[in-house]
Amino acid sequence: MPSSERARQLTLSSCQPPTDGKGRPFSLDGINPSDKPFGSDDKAADKAAVEALAIELDALQNLFYADRRFKLLVILQGMDTSGKDGTLRAVFSRMSPLGVHTVGWKAPTEPERARDYLWRIHQQVPAAGEIMVFNRSHYEDVLVPVVNGWITPGQASQRYAHINDFERMLAETGTIILKFMLHISLDEQRERLQERVDDPAKHWKFSMGDLEVRKQWDAYQKAYEALLGATSVPHAPWTVVPANSKTHRNLMIATVLRDALQSLSLRYPTGDPALTGLKIV
Amino acid sequence: MPSSERARQLTLSSCQPPTDGKGRPFSLDGINPSDKPFGSDDKAADKAAVEALAIELDALQNLFYADRRFKLLVILQGMDTSGKDGTLRAVFSRMSPLGVHTVGWKAPTEPERARDYLWRIHQQVPAAGEIMVFNRSHYEDVLVPVVNGWITPGQASQRYAHINDFERMLAETGTIILKFMLHISLDEQRERLQERVDDPAKHWKFSMGDLEVRKQWDAYQKAYEALLGATSVPHAPWTVVPANSKTHRNLMIATVLRDALQSLSLRYPTGDPALTGLKIV
Repeated sequence: MPSSERARQLTLSSCQPPTDGKGRPFSLDGINPSDKPFGSDDKAADKAAVEALAIELDALQNLFYADRRFKLLVILQGMDTSGKDGTLRAVFSRMSPLGVHTVGWKAPTEPERARDYLWRIHQQVPAAGEIMVFNRSHYEDVLVPVVNGWITPGQASQRYAHINDFERMLAETGTIILKFMLHISLDEQRERLQERVDDPAKHWKFSMGDLEVRKQWDAYQKAYEALLGATSVPHAPWTVVPANSKTHRNLMIATVLRDALQSLSLRYPTGDPALTGLKIV
Repeated sequence: MPSSERARQLTLSSCQPPTDGKGRPFSLDGINPSDKPFGSDDKAADKAAVEALAIELDALQNLFYADRRFKLLVILQGMDTSGKDGTLRAVFSRMSPLGVHTVGWKAPTEPERARDYLWRIHQQVPAAGEIMVFNRSHYEDVLVPVVNGWITPGQASQRYAHINDFERMLAETGTIILKFMLHISLDEQRERLQERVDDPAKHWKFSMGDLEVRKQWDAYQKAYEALLGATSVPHAPWTVVPANSKTHRNLMIATVLRDALQSLSLRYPTGDPALTGLKIV
């Protein structure tokens, strides 16, 4: 099947691993990173749609903050240069910083390594009315150690179970959880890394270690397939986002997010009945 | 059966709820708070034994700290005046404060109530080599709301599951968990509360709210029976401690703790081989 036809066939549900609890690895083969299931043929129109969505999201976030019945945790995962920072800027930067927070997770520090790997994560979960966006997350703990053989397959399975338990507890105490895997191709990464090398203004985004991780590309894809299958659950589904096109990536994430917020039937809390008819004198 | 005979029959295992995962409420009827399964007829000898154990525990804690393979979480629960503070002083105060930490949990603050009830708890779990003692704990969240009807039985069961999941994750990442329910009688509490009222130097330990909680005694005992049955698991067992006698309470807790630490085969880490034969010049 030519790629252009496949592109038209990709839908949201084909980008979401089954949440049937069977935990089978979710193959990324069927998802071409250049496909645009949420895009049109008109890039300018897509860009305008992202802008419109960002404004819509701002209004929804305002309501979400006032409503205070829910917490929202958004997780962004993906290989280097897959566009996690760019998503933050394009999709979330219109919202009020009062109610939207971001954490960029790095390698754990000494005190963090001295506790379980969910310890530092739990400290940063959103409060009632808040939106928290994780740039990388606890899913790094079932990627880096798996790819490098630091933990056994049995230990990886144990961690999937810990993560599912943890996220279920968060969901059962009012947290909406949305997880996005930004899916780019090996070629696209080469181009984006080259850009960082060629442009001195982008050197700060590049480290030689990125090349080592690039060499492990296939092992990382496999580790992603395993975690997508094991940890996509009804209360915390994964969405794989074809992300070779930045505009499409933003459009898809903003749409899924908007739909999730709209489905909550958010409302402003009812005021004190004493306010009805009150005359301020 | 006269109470003196029953006293001789109480053993450690009869004070530990089954960890078979069936979750049936554990009846406290069989455990007379005045019994002394770990005591002798000689109070002075028992006191000397506690002292000896405290010194033994100090040495074990030192080794535990150096070994750094484990974390130890000790949870003390019990009704007002059941002796949680007294246990801290008698059993833990010989240890180096470097490796032993304590948190006394109070009613949650506003930012704590805005997250799940395990959020603040997770922040205080012990690091590698550390001993953390919780004076009250997340178990208050399946006592106070249950007794006051703030959560449904279904929500209580959900919380038992959250707690079991959470503690299993801690155990699987190297935490030893020991949980003690300090079991006193209604009469003993009356005497201890009266003492606090009569002695101005103890007024700070008393609040009128304690009398409201005392009125709910039976409901609290029932809530304890439910949680003891639901959350006593192989990786985090409960021990019910007959605690009308303070000396017996200390003796029993110190012994269980000592035995748990001894079973870990703690060792000093092996030094750098380069140290062998090294001459400092």
